[in-house]
Amino acid sequence: MQRPLVVQKFGGSSVANADRIRRVARRIGRERAAGSDLVVVVSAMGDTTDELLTLAHAITDEPDARELDMLLATGEHQSATLLSMALHALGVEAISLTGPQAGITTDGRYGRARIANIEPRRIRAEIEKGNVVIVAGFQGQSETAADQAEMTTLGRGGSDTTAVALAAALKADRCQIFTDVKGIYTADPRVVPDARQLPVIGYEEMLELAHQGAQVMQVRAVELGWVNDVVIEVLSSFEDAPGTLIREDPLVEQRNKVRGLAHDRNVAKVTLVAVPDRPGVARSVFEPLAEAGINVDMIVQNVGHGGATDMSFTVPRAELGKAKKVLEAVVRDLGAREITTDASVAKVSIVGAGLHNAPGYAARMFGTLADAGVNIEMISTSEVRITCMIAEDELSTALSALHGAFELAKPDAIDVAATGMAAG
Amino acid sequence: MQRPLVVQKFGGSSVANADRIRRVARRIGRERAAGSDLVVVVSAMGDTTDELLTLAHAITDEPDARELDMLLATGEHQSATLLSMALHALGVEAISLTGPQAGITTDGRYGRARIANIEPRRIRAEIEKGNVVIVAGFQGQSETAADQAEMTTLGRGGSDTTAVALAAALKADRCQIFTDVKGIYTADPRVVPDARQLPVIGYEEMLELAHQGAQVMQVRAVELGWVNDVVIEVLSSFEDAPGTLIREDPLVEQRNKVRGLAHDRNVAKVTLVAVPDRPGVARSVFEPLAEAGINVDMIVQNVGHGGATDMSFTVPRAELGKAKKVLEAVVRDLGAREITTDASVAKVSIVGAGLHNAPGYAARMFGTLADAGVNIEMISTSEVRITCMIAEDELSTALSALHGAFELAKPDAIDVAATGMAAG
Repeated sequence: MQRPLVVQKFGGSSVANADRIRRVARRIGRERAAGSDLVVVVSAMGDTTDELLTLAHAITDEPDARELDMLLATGEHQSATLLSMALHALGVEAISLTGPQAGITTDGRYGRARIANIEPRRIRAEIEKGNVVIVAGFQGQSETAADQAEMTTLGRGGSDTTAVALAAALKADRCQIFTDVKGIYTADPRVVPDARQLPVIGYEEMLELAHQGAQVMQVRAVELGWVNDVVIEVLSSFEDAPGTLIREDPLVEQRNKVRGLAHDRNVAKVTLVAVPDRPGVARSVFEPLAEAGINVDMIVQNVGHGGATDMSFTVPRAELGKAKKVLEAVVRDLGAREITTDASVAKVSIVGAGLHNAPGYAARMFGTLADAGVNIEMISTSEVRITCMIAEDELSTALSALHGAFELAKPDAIDVAATGMAAG
Repeated sequence: MQRPLVVQKFGGSSVANADRIRRVARRIGRERAAGSDLVVVVSAMGDTTDELLTLAHAITDEPDARELDMLLATGEHQSATLLSMALHALGVEAISLTGPQAGITTDGRYGRARIANIEPRRIRAEIEKGNVVIVAGFQGQSETAADQAEMTTLGRGGSDTTAVALAAALKADRCQIFTDVKGIYTADPRVVPDARQLPVIGYEEMLELAHQGAQVMQVRAVELGWVNDVVIEVLSSFEDAPGTLIREDPLVEQRNKVRGLAHDRNVAKVTLVAVPDRPGVARSVFEPLAEAGINVDMIVQNVGHGGATDMSFTVPRAELGKAKKVLEAVVRDLGAREITTDASVAKVSIVGAGLHNAPGYAARMFGTLADAGVNIEMISTSEVRITCMIAEDELSTALSALHGAFELAKPDAIDVAATGMAAG
């Protein structure tokens, strides 16, 4: 009988020091003893990546992207080798591989590479030899001849993507993402005390949660899981408890349509006042922002009056200074009156597949916020999400009110059945 | 006209932090501006290698050799990328390469690999593009197919070897080893205040100095320089001053035959008392020590009397405990009386080409030590060296007496001419 193949990923906080690395090794050892073949993806230890970034910025304001990728990749090499040593100390055969050794090639874009191909020949050979294979996450090499190949990294949270991509390439039976949370919740439990852990969530819902500020998994990893039909389990590396399965959800029609709340404080509102109301204005505003690498969200343009209109949108709060600088020239060129900004705002979202077919949910969201005395400043929607921008100091009130109104603390009766299926 | 090609190597203390890395970059920038093509080899920053070793030993007592090499190699990757960034910040085009990217392949032995081959195609291409090429020292890959290749390291001080091997492969015009000392001295200037920096020293003399505890350069690097006729310049990374040239010394016959003194405190004396005097005994003693990886030096066997003999030798002081453990079984098997040890000894050597043809030097050494009241416990000699073991607390007295007796503070009249030739 074929042994089950499990891909496990451990994040930076799970391998932050020698003790934690040994604990992770014990967990892997138990899974191994239970009869699984294992491929384990690791992130860099603790804050290593940030420390390396700080070092690079102590040298130069603008580190070269190629050199930076080579520098950052060392963090995962280190944690991978140490975890392999910890397994040896337990008598578990193991070998660590760099991204290139694991056969992971990318499109070659520094700092935000996408995995182009995985040739898992070496991984399979090491599994055949009886090794637990530890793969350095977050990295791969550009697709060129050996001595021309460059190290590229996959961007923040890229180890999640490494794990899901490996699970797809190896047709793994399970893909487990171990984190410092227990799973996916109906809302952030630090803000909403009766937030409930979800046993299962659909890919699209998970994507919206991730986009809206739930930092549990890299968006790209969820997309890759969706495309390749990889069932992803998010669970705690510090507790032995079931996590949340991210998977195609066959029971989506029978559930509470709102699966969870997301929120994002890393946001600022920008308003261009009295912009001339003529074709091409939107491009004049948003093209320079895109060129500056600033993500724009929640664009609202009021009805024009007197040949001018107000245009509002949000940007990441950390980018507000840069955005203002870009927009000052734009305002001058367009002949708009002024720019106003507000960095004390936040976004709150309800997320759930099927929301767009159920207009009652939007009404209930707006009504709930009104009853709680929370003013809505902007609204945007997607297929599976309704987002309101509100004042940041009303965020906690808003989340609690919405969590109650949509009965998120109450388990769906069908969740137990769903979990059973997913694990089967 | 062909631009001169210079290989420079900077050790760990030269790149210990961001400030020092920037200083090294400025020095490289000046050499570049003077019109040289440059290949720069770096060690890991400051104590990085020791810190990584400590981390590995926090995980397990016996880290796997393969994993350890992969772990340690990250130190040089980091310093190489940071130095490249520092050059960019000065407007100097540069690129960092790992050992494998630089085309360095080894015999595949973990922890003490030897460079088997250098295929400098990529280095040459990067020089052609106008880049200063930064190469991570201390490493190379085993000679196998790309996804099977393993990272191997060259042992302590291996970056010196990387630099000399690259200078040989690239037929460089100069090979400069930047260190935290100004060059090679007639004796350790911390112990002998009037020690004098040598303008030039022969390969063989340098080898003996290195073997006898002068930690300036890796022995293997000097050997490689000798075999490939690479003129090596050792100089300070903190000062702009001429260093010492290591080269075939055509004037050796005309010089003071004693070029310098070496000493080594990392030594302990072991005596096996009343060992049966029969064939095969030496093998019974030294084979188990070799198997345990313990270097034995200065073996002395007294004339036997009554069918038994005393056998003395030295081991590195740090290995004394291990050696005793190995030898206890040996003593039992051989029926020797006991083991005695002494860890408060030191070795002092006079080094110079031609010493073996000049018996007067040995006599002068022994006489000088006697006059200074220093007792000689053991003696060993080589082609270019005479070594005495003495009590450690008499080391400073012995060095000063010898430095005076052999007139080492006085420059050779021909040194100036020699340096002029070497730089020409």
